[in-house]
Amino acid sequence: MIENIKPEEIEKRSFEIIKSELSERGISLDERYAHIISRCIHTSADFDYSESLYFSDGVVERIEKAIQDGCVIITDTKMAQAGINKSKLDGFGTGTMCFISAEDVARDAKERGLTRSYVAMEKAKLLERPVIFAIGNAPTALLSIMRMVEEDGLDPVAVIGVPVGFVNVVESKEMLISSGIPCIVNKGRKGGSNIAACIVNAIQYKL
Amino acid sequence: MIENIKPEEIEKRSFEIIKSELSERGISLDERYAHIISRCIHTSADFDYSESLYFSDGVVERIEKAIQDGCVIITDTKMAQAGINKSKLDGFGTGTMCFISAEDVARDAKERGLTRSYVAMEKAKLLERPVIFAIGNAPTALLSIMRMVEEDGLDPVAVIGVPVGFVNVVESKEMLISSGIPCIVNKGRKGGSNIAACIVNAIQYKL
Repeated sequence: MIENIKPEEIEKRSFEIIKSELSERGISLDERYAHIISRCIHTSADFDYSESLYFSDGVVERIEKAIQDGCVIITDTKMAQAGINKSKLDGFGTGTMCFISAEDVARDAKERGLTRSYVAMEKAKLLERPVIFAIGNAPTALLSIMRMVEEDGLDPVAVIGVPVGFVNVVESKEMLISSGIPCIVNKGRKGGSNIAACIVNAIQYKL
Repeated sequence: MIENIKPEEIEKRSFEIIKSELSERGISLDERYAHIISRCIHTSADFDYSESLYFSDGVVERIEKAIQDGCVIITDTKMAQAGINKSKLDGFGTGTMCFISAEDVARDAKERGLTRSYVAMEKAKLLERPVIFAIGNAPTALLSIMRMVEEDGLDPVAVIGVPVGFVNVVESKEMLISSGIPCIVNKGRKGGSNIAACIVNAIQYKL
């Protein structure tokens, strides 16, 4: 039976159901992160996210402040970029960028035998604004960011590291957690462009 | 340990892992749909997709033919639209469209007390080309399509119905399966814009 519900009430009702089912499962979320974890469950209908998200100390506050001060959010896919709600960000002077389809990125990646995702991250060094990375697809993007931090002195606001998949995904996320870079990570294989976008949205919607 | 692997081999290796883990779980996929189901697992790292996807008879062939003959793929989100690989589609003269952000859609939705997703689907009636719907977010988009088929004589090539979530999601997908409209559906709560795009991609990559 289709439930007759007003458009503006659908999201509220969804979060009520999530809250109630978390409670049935005996799971209570950390209040500091509940809005983010719940939105990941909302985006995926997957309660695994209640137990796999990692937040480094103070990372959410760092991201909140950077968004409010005007920064750039770099994604590894057009899909993640498309999923980030722009209306509130615009008001703060915060923008999104994705270099995956740039011609020089494709050429450079081929010449160096690297993924386009790896090379696309390096564009961050050319920006003269604080950078948040939102990575939902490519472990190689995380490796590129960690190399730049270690060797080139890159100092990102934070990395949202939620690539999905089977090759180097788990390992690159564990490396990110150990790196000391401020980060939000979904441990394990799961994640995705939709999850990267939804974490950015969960944080900005609260501002 | 990060596995040293060439960029062009990452996807191949991922699908080998998926195949091998399906085998360990004793799951054998229907050969007709294995490329689609495996890509959904690849996109989500979620093996639930091995058991929840529904295909109406002949739907894949219908979608293949329409893509090759030049059609329009209408999505309910910009994220699904962004996730569909355009290079091969371009060669067939097949395009993607998403009306969710159109000003008249927002206005009309507000006046009629409907979701923007519902109203955005109605633009399909204005197109003079065959339409495939790829719906990864809004159950109301599915309701809108089913109403147009029943009452307005709309005759879509197929509906990829994989909305995600908690309110009317399961029910709208069951209705779509019962409707007789050619469709691919992920039963249950799971799905998403990423899954909608990945199903389109799995089908077109084989062409």
